[in-house]
Amino acid sequence: MKVGIIGAGQLGWMMITEGRKLQHQYLVLSENPGPASKVADGNFSLRDYRRFVDKCDVVTPEFEHTNPSIFEYAQEQGKLLPSMDALSLKVDRSLEKSFLAEHGFPVAKFSVAREGAEAIKMAKAFGRSVIKASKGGYDGKGQYYIGETGRLPTEALTAPGYVVEEFIEFETEASIIASRDRDGVKLFHPPSLNKNLNGILFSNEAPCEDYGMKRITSRLMDSLGYVGVMAVEFFIVNGKAIVNEFAPRVHNSGHHTLHGSSISQFEQHIRVITDLPVTSPELFRPSGIVNAVGLNVDRHLQEAVLSIPETHSYSYGKQETRPGRKMGHVNLTAEGLKTLRKRSAQVVNALYGNDPSENFGS
Amino acid sequence: MKVGIIGAGQLGWMMITEGRKLQHQYLVLSENPGPASKVADGNFSLRDYRRFVDKCDVVTPEFEHTNPSIFEYAQEQGKLLPSMDALSLKVDRSLEKSFLAEHGFPVAKFSVAREGAEAIKMAKAFGRSVIKASKGGYDGKGQYYIGETGRLPTEALTAPGYVVEEFIEFETEASIIASRDRDGVKLFHPPSLNKNLNGILFSNEAPCEDYGMKRITSRLMDSLGYVGVMAVEFFIVNGKAIVNEFAPRVHNSGHHTLHGSSISQFEQHIRVITDLPVTSPELFRPSGIVNAVGLNVDRHLQEAVLSIPETHSYSYGKQETRPGRKMGHVNLTAEGLKTLRKRSAQVVNALYGNDPSENFGS
Repeated sequence: MKVGIIGAGQLGWMMITEGRKLQHQYLVLSENPGPASKVADGNFSLRDYRRFVDKCDVVTPEFEHTNPSIFEYAQEQGKLLPSMDALSLKVDRSLEKSFLAEHGFPVAKFSVAREGAEAIKMAKAFGRSVIKASKGGYDGKGQYYIGETGRLPTEALTAPGYVVEEFIEFETEASIIASRDRDGVKLFHPPSLNKNLNGILFSNEAPCEDYGMKRITSRLMDSLGYVGVMAVEFFIVNGKAIVNEFAPRVHNSGHHTLHGSSISQFEQHIRVITDLPVTSPELFRPSGIVNAVGLNVDRHLQEAVLSIPETHSYSYGKQETRPGRKMGHVNLTAEGLKTLRKRSAQVVNALYGNDPSENFGS
Repeated sequence: MKVGIIGAGQLGWMMITEGRKLQHQYLVLSENPGPASKVADGNFSLRDYRRFVDKCDVVTPEFEHTNPSIFEYAQEQGKLLPSMDALSLKVDRSLEKSFLAEHGFPVAKFSVAREGAEAIKMAKAFGRSVIKASKGGYDGKGQYYIGETGRLPTEALTAPGYVVEEFIEFETEASIIASRDRDGVKLFHPPSLNKNLNGILFSNEAPCEDYGMKRITSRLMDSLGYVGVMAVEFFIVNGKAIVNEFAPRVHNSGHHTLHGSSISQFEQHIRVITDLPVTSPELFRPSGIVNAVGLNVDRHLQEAVLSIPETHSYSYGKQETRPGRKMGHVNLTAEGLKTLRKRSAQVVNALYGNDPSENFGS
């Protein structure tokens, strides 16, 4: 089969390398070349999206912030997985939030603002809160934390719409990787605890307690008629899961499934969207990652990282290193969580020394 | 770094897909395109071997039956790993056997014959025996089992040299995947039990008892000053390991390391030859494979195989299916060996039905 991937980033790159064993062909649609372009069987520029869709048997996004006409055309041709039912909610954060609230999913209190001044007014009403641009934000971009005192980002708020959320005093952040196939069969990787820094995933570890994440994700996928792998991010408050957001695709918090699991999220997604069987994912041993953000995992860092037992270093091969840019990640496994955490700390130290904040642009 | 792979088969293909995460570049040298060609960063034809070697930082074979000048030139340039010390023994089976015997490794009794008639005479003297062409044989090619009665393959024996071995009444066949780095540090994957059919690997399972394999392999690698991954195949007789042969490269009996292990043989080899650290391989749970020989793992077979829990289907994308030709393999893992064997039997049944012998050309 011919699988079309919208976006040329590292998620597409790993979908292709993990999906190679199945002997599908992989075509990539992107304006600029990225990690996935080099390993693809063919590359198309955005203006060629109709020809790209026509060539493919199935089309899937690795990045959802693109020209909506692409999704619409692929959907018209019956080739888009997951479908517009899920993807259209990700075009505007307010649509996603409203959908979740209306369907009774646990979410933080929120308001929708049409412009910056209104957003600030709403934020003040909440007390501690987060203002998020409705469109185009990811990896903490377009997000502003508002404390009870301190400077307000008045000049920065020039976007045409915002979601203002009450700040959640969470115990931890967690996420789950799940899949749903055409017959509605749902499968779950054991969930992970995630640490974020400046809105960007820093590291994670699996397994963790469920906190109700499986039940919520199951209902969410059903309510969207979802087909493919989905990641759902949660805040854990008083032992209960509150939905932060969902990703209608493979996700950074699922990279730990590349090692230590019976199947990676990438192969799982490719199998599901090409209608090949997937059986219940097994976690062989505690697994996690540390993201390499704002730094090039050069030879020297590779050597330091790979000297730590049960590690794998992934370099995405991006040319330009910028603060906040994901350049690679390190996979870890260990017989127990205690050893995993020790190794994770060693990897963090090897990559960042004492302070990663500059690399994350904070 | 630029890694040169001599040969374009499935071993090269998996070295490249498993090595992608390290962001090396992979160049392939082969007269005809094969599975590795499509995923390589560059392809060279055999007559361009000097330009190929000059472009690479390190050169390694995935197939050793090639023009010896290639190895010699790569060695002269200080780029060949493993070195000629090991590879030259694989040019002629009699050299390998003599080396092993002279260095006190346990091997079957053997004689070296200059032509067919002499080989038959020697075979008769042994009683049950195996006549093997000295050059070019692999996957049972050029090998003839000689019973105490029955037809002799007199007309077939037209090669310029043979090794005649006493037939070993083995309890089982086993192998080990090991590596040795530039500093002489040796690492071992847990060994596997292998089933062969018509001289071709049919299926295997790991872990198994050691039977002395680790000790023998350790000494063999040291005695060759070996750098890279090596596979050694053994016959197990009265609980002791007798060396059948070694492969100076990744090996079919190590494909199970792709899943259920902390590192695959392919990534391990790439790391070792590019002088990146490798730590001791861990087997997370019992793992094995079933080879897909003489059959195309088409959509129908993929569906049958992937419905069995904890399986992965690898299709090498070869155009022509022939009896005895390896077209793909299936990886299996399971919580225990008993379940692994049950799943393995299910995969065999899905691929071959009741009788695989025709697929193996027997």
